[in-house]
Amino acid sequence: MVDVPELVAAARSGRPRAVARLISLVESASPQLREVMAALAPHTGRAQVIGLTGSPGVGKSTSTSALVTAYRKRGKRVGVLAVDPSSPFSGGALLGDRVRMQEHATDPEVYIRSMATRGHLGGLAWAAPQAIRVLDAAGCDVVLVETVGVGQSEVEIAGQADTSVVLLAPGMGDGIQAAKAGILEIGDVYVVNKADRDGADATARELNHMLGLGEARQPGDWRPPIVKTVAARQEGVDELVEALEKHRAWMDEHGVLAERRRARAAREVETIAVTALRERIGDLGGDERLGALAHRVVEGELDPYAAADQLLAALTGRY
Amino acid sequence: MVDVPELVAAARSGRPRAVARLISLVESASPQLREVMAALAPHTGRAQVIGLTGSPGVGKSTSTSALVTAYRKRGKRVGVLAVDPSSPFSGGALLGDRVRMQEHATDPEVYIRSMATRGHLGGLAWAAPQAIRVLDAAGCDVVLVETVGVGQSEVEIAGQADTSVVLLAPGMGDGIQAAKAGILEIGDVYVVNKADRDGADATARELNHMLGLGEARQPGDWRPPIVKTVAARQEGVDELVEALEKHRAWMDEHGVLAERRRARAAREVETIAVTALRERIGDLGGDERLGALAHRVVEGELDPYAAADQLLAALTGRY
Repeated sequence: MVDVPELVAAARSGRPRAVARLISLVESASPQLREVMAALAPHTGRAQVIGLTGSPGVGKSTSTSALVTAYRKRGKRVGVLAVDPSSPFSGGALLGDRVRMQEHATDPEVYIRSMATRGHLGGLAWAAPQAIRVLDAAGCDVVLVETVGVGQSEVEIAGQADTSVVLLAPGMGDGIQAAKAGILEIGDVYVVNKADRDGADATARELNHMLGLGEARQPGDWRPPIVKTVAARQEGVDELVEALEKHRAWMDEHGVLAERRRARAAREVETIAVTALRERIGDLGGDERLGALAHRVVEGELDPYAAADQLLAALTGRY
Repeated sequence: MVDVPELVAAARSGRPRAVARLISLVESASPQLREVMAALAPHTGRAQVIGLTGSPGVGKSTSTSALVTAYRKRGKRVGVLAVDPSSPFSGGALLGDRVRMQEHATDPEVYIRSMATRGHLGGLAWAAPQAIRVLDAAGCDVVLVETVGVGQSEVEIAGQADTSVVLLAPGMGDGIQAAKAGILEIGDVYVVNKADRDGADATARELNHMLGLGEARQPGDWRPPIVKTVAARQEGVDELVEALEKHRAWMDEHGVLAERRRARAAREVETIAVTALRERIGDLGGDERLGALAHRVVEGELDPYAAADQLLAALTGRY
């Protein structure tokens, strides 16, 4: 058994191995998970959680690394969570396990973690938010959550962030792809990376046009800015940080941050509760056993709704 | 209010409009849904449910239509459910709403229904199985469930079938695509359609090779056959029906049919129960209101697991 209070104290005092250990406990659904989460709770809510998403090849890792550099210059402690929803491989080293991040590998104020979520109990909805909590409680001022692709899972992860950054690159027909993937709806800040390439202005214009196609905005509404960067040369990254800080200030001013975090916490709590209910369904015995009810449905003795009613009655002790 | 017993009796006596009406009631989540399902239950379980899936362009609609022709020659009553998980448009006419099906539009022993499932409450998991129940209870000997694409949703729908048919066509690099989409694991019968085209033999060989790559089979295991068809000319379709009947006989002999149907019914019952629990969570008031708990999580007063415990206690009256 791990001494959780000691481990949390060590993580909060800036010991990277303690942070790593806590994330591992969370990731492996350790029996001490609840103890860990309870110990972390009072220390959460301070970090700005920033999600980065975009198609492969737009330079997400390079941009994440460039953002780490920019925030470190400002004296911030930074956590990076690189989530690969398609990979069945779990874990990953805490430091320096991604080539782009090598330059930050020896910086004790930067925590880097990659996380594969496929096959995890409850998937993304479950593992990523808990890891974010660990980094938050460990005193990170900023947590960057980078996802590997563009798909439903990535959109979900973006939903875990206070601010979502959508990255594009010139000449990839990305505008259309982004529209298809539904990420034009999730971006708070857009980045056209590799802006030294041909077509960067065209991509920015196309994006600007597509973003403008939405409903007319009210005064005080957030109009997502488009920032051009060359992350590999650290160009435009200060402007990106500025845009992120503006968004944070706007959210604070309009109560949006509190609202987003409440909605996120509500989804998280609901997911944990529903997962627990599914487990209880699996534990039911006798005539209310799911298999027994299913058998009666197959035999035509019971319709699926009546069977579900019996299940619920057994589960909750009332209709 | 609809007279449900009368409607069910009319559907069972072969009145297509009654069948259409029942599916509409089911699809629209009518308040009478439970009454409909209860009335149908005793009449379900007789139909052979066959799923057809495959990439766009392989000829799914043509193959479905050809199968209808083949089963009609054998005197069977046939139901067709064409499911488009990506379309937000609901409903569809009962008869002749798909061009390929026109030839069967006036046959009173053929029920054809298209169904869009995106945006439906609970999605696919919810609407498709209920529509299959209607067609089953209406006396269909065979229900063909055709899905439009190849993706997770389609794989889910295939899971609703007793027998899953995976279609491919020559020269589309389909083998690899199929492997990627995970449909090499779900096929009970494989079809290389458009077998008069160049490359049909190569596709069949490639497929045969990929299917052989799995684990060594036990004696008595089902080895998915590969059938070559030219559905547009009704060629090979009798062989396909034969393969489907062999699979049905094999399932009966080995208890697989009962096992599959039980597993399917269990998933269906669980989904209905979980959906109801989510609704009850939404209905909770006071301190156990999800929003109130989420607020305390955001404030760091409560961790998400402790909040979920409170939710569950309020929901079920016990821990």
